[in-house]
Amino acid sequence: MKVHKIAVLAGDGIGKEVAPEGVRAVEAAARRFNFAVEWTTFEWPSCEYYLKHGKMMPDDWMAQLAGYDALFFGAVGWPETVPDHVSLWGSLLQFRRQFDQYINLRPVRLLPGVPCPLANKQPGDIDMVIVRENTEGEYSSVGGRMFAGTEREFVLQEAIFTRTGVDRVLKFAFELARKRPKKHLTSATKSNGISISMPYWDERVDAMGLNYPEIRHDKYHIDILTARFVLSPERFDVVVASNLFGDILSDLGPACAGTIGIAPSANLNPERNFPSLFEPVHGSAPDIYGRNIANPIAMIWCGAMMLDFLGHSDAHDAMVAAIERVLVEGPRTPDMGGTASTTEVGAAIAALI
Amino acid sequence: MKVHKIAVLAGDGIGKEVAPEGVRAVEAAARRFNFAVEWTTFEWPSCEYYLKHGKMMPDDWMAQLAGYDALFFGAVGWPETVPDHVSLWGSLLQFRRQFDQYINLRPVRLLPGVPCPLANKQPGDIDMVIVRENTEGEYSSVGGRMFAGTEREFVLQEAIFTRTGVDRVLKFAFELARKRPKKHLTSATKSNGISISMPYWDERVDAMGLNYPEIRHDKYHIDILTARFVLSPERFDVVVASNLFGDILSDLGPACAGTIGIAPSANLNPERNFPSLFEPVHGSAPDIYGRNIANPIAMIWCGAMMLDFLGHSDAHDAMVAAIERVLVEGPRTPDMGGTASTTEVGAAIAALI
Ligand SMILES: CC(C)[C@H](C(=O)O)[C@@H](O)C(=O)O
Ligand SMILES: CC(C)[C@H](C(=O)O)[C@@H](O)C(=O)O
Repeated sequence: MKVHKIAVLAGDGIGKEVAPEGVRAVEAAARRFNFAVEWTTFEWPSCEYYLKHGKMMPDDWMAQLAGYDALFFGAVGWPETVPDHVSLWGSLLQFRRQFDQYINLRPVRLLPGVPCPLANKQPGDIDMVIVRENTEGEYSSVGGRMFAGTEREFVLQEAIFTRTGVDRVLKFAFELARKRPKKHLTSATKSNGISISMPYWDERVDAMGLNYPEIRHDKYHIDILTARFVLSPERFDVVVASNLFGDILSDLGPACAGTIGIAPSANLNPERNFPSLFEPVHGSAPDIYGRNIANPIAMIWCGAMMLDFLGHSDAHDAMVAAIERVLVEGPRTPDMGGTASTTEVGAAIAALI
Repeated sequence: MKVHKIAVLAGDGIGKEVAPEGVRAVEAAARRFNFAVEWTTFEWPSCEYYLKHGKMMPDDWMAQLAGYDALFFGAVGWPETVPDHVSLWGSLLQFRRQFDQYINLRPVRLLPGVPCPLANKQPGDIDMVIVRENTEGEYSSVGGRMFAGTEREFVLQEAIFTRTGVDRVLKFAFELARKRPKKHLTSATKSNGISISMPYWDERVDAMGLNYPEIRHDKYHIDILTARFVLSPERFDVVVASNLFGDILSDLGPACAGTIGIAPSANLNPERNFPSLFEPVHGSAPDIYGRNIANPIAMIWCGAMMLDFLGHSDAHDAMVAAIERVLVEGPRTPDMGGTASTTEVGAAIAALI
């Protein structure tokens, strides 16, 4: 029997509440589809660890994690005690960069049973995948401050787009579009205003597009693209975007599809040189932590994406089917209008798997 | 009688169709409120001018325009013949920077008669003003490309935030919040991911907030903020943002309020050392140009904002009242579900003023 070694990094806040439900659902799938998972739980990265040790993770985190088949990640962040840029640059953003998880994949679907904030949209009207570049672009640690504390003070922040970095995410997105029925790819840009990096991005999209004559591809500036997500989301199939634009679109997309409480994401190293990381789009949500009311569906969906990546597409499909059924029939956590607890929803989904 | 000297820069595409309706409405207001406008029309900036002269505007554009009280701007861009970053950096973005129009002000309101794409929202639920920094930040022309044409190719794009630039837009936004009943200011940030410029932005917001103890202010990361615009737009009053984030929010906001076809904007130099510029949020819309179906309401609303800035708040209010009435009673252009032409809607609004 195949055994997958998975590291559980539950992190902070509701990460600690939803991670066990994700594990429970994956365990149910393992029993049904006949494979095994060996789980190892880590107390880091977390803000609690930071308060004790002055850093989010031990120095040898790479060595400790490199051997796992995947990282099952809850959420990190507790801004009351540790500023977000410290906790995130000390953990999640390190994983993405050091483990070269250059694809951030975020499916966005309007599902039956989920109340949609957009008027007149039906399940099926929203069905897209956002492919976000995940290692470079606008998220860089290069730059600095000059004339600090004076009237002349300013900061510089570099955005960095390499041909390698841009081409590989575009290739992944075009390949994905090829596998989907609509064969349509939209690229997010802002080349009318951001005059160096974004024209370069456009140029690489055009160059890559030549290899995929069967894919219809178009470009939207990010401003009008966000408007289009609200006004006509049915236009979109695969949407490829830089690190920042992908970040924005993958919160906005799920919001248009009802809730970011159920949105999953996969941080992939497609070459499998390093472990990939699976995390809900929602964060640590300090405001609701400790009440066992967080929605575990995003985490469970992440478990499904993880199993898909590990070769169990049947387990993925069964897990997503169970999620879809619970969305229609309940139980539901308060964010979905119900009164069930995190544990109850997790147990219901696991039972269906 | 007071005479205002206004330059009309209609630009490209539907800019040329809506500008005359804006002029007509302002003329109606001038007659009613007893002031005069002296209009001067320019054939530049425009892509037609570019095709003839290899540039969007003559070299002495600053000298030619500096003496006007305001610039009444349609839209620029004709991507089929001139790339957007060439046409925009050669015109609009020059005005903003050289005329130090550091405030881009964009009111967003859900109005009666406008179909809202969000479910269950009523007129009044959306009533905010977006204050966008308009001269620096992510829109910079600093950066470049290295190893061009090779596998090692990369581009750098600087974002630049100066204390002067950040503080003055924050001050304007806090002052504006002070004048509004809700006394609430939201700052758009992304300090968890963009680790140099955005923590600086947050720091300046906190510093400025100390001067305004009566204003409740909060921060949202741009990703969740776009989600909140869709899920709970009634939360927001004044929203202050960097150049790029303001650009995104001021397309998304109007989309949530029904249509970007009616959204106005003002590019202000509050010190009045240079002319301010008033332009619709919609662009040149090559796809509908030439059919006299473009919605002139954004341009007319810009005229109202322009008169407000020139000291005629009564004229502003009358123009906005006329717009609101036509939105309810018609006539309507096709984008609003009607069959009226640009000219018919423009004439109807002018008649009501
Ligand atoms: C046309 C473009 C350069 C411009 C911008 O990004 O500022 C436009 O989108 C706007 O919002 O005025
Ligand atoms: C927490 C934050 C740094 C992160 C990001 O911006 O990438 C998050 O928003 C995400 O989308 O995964």
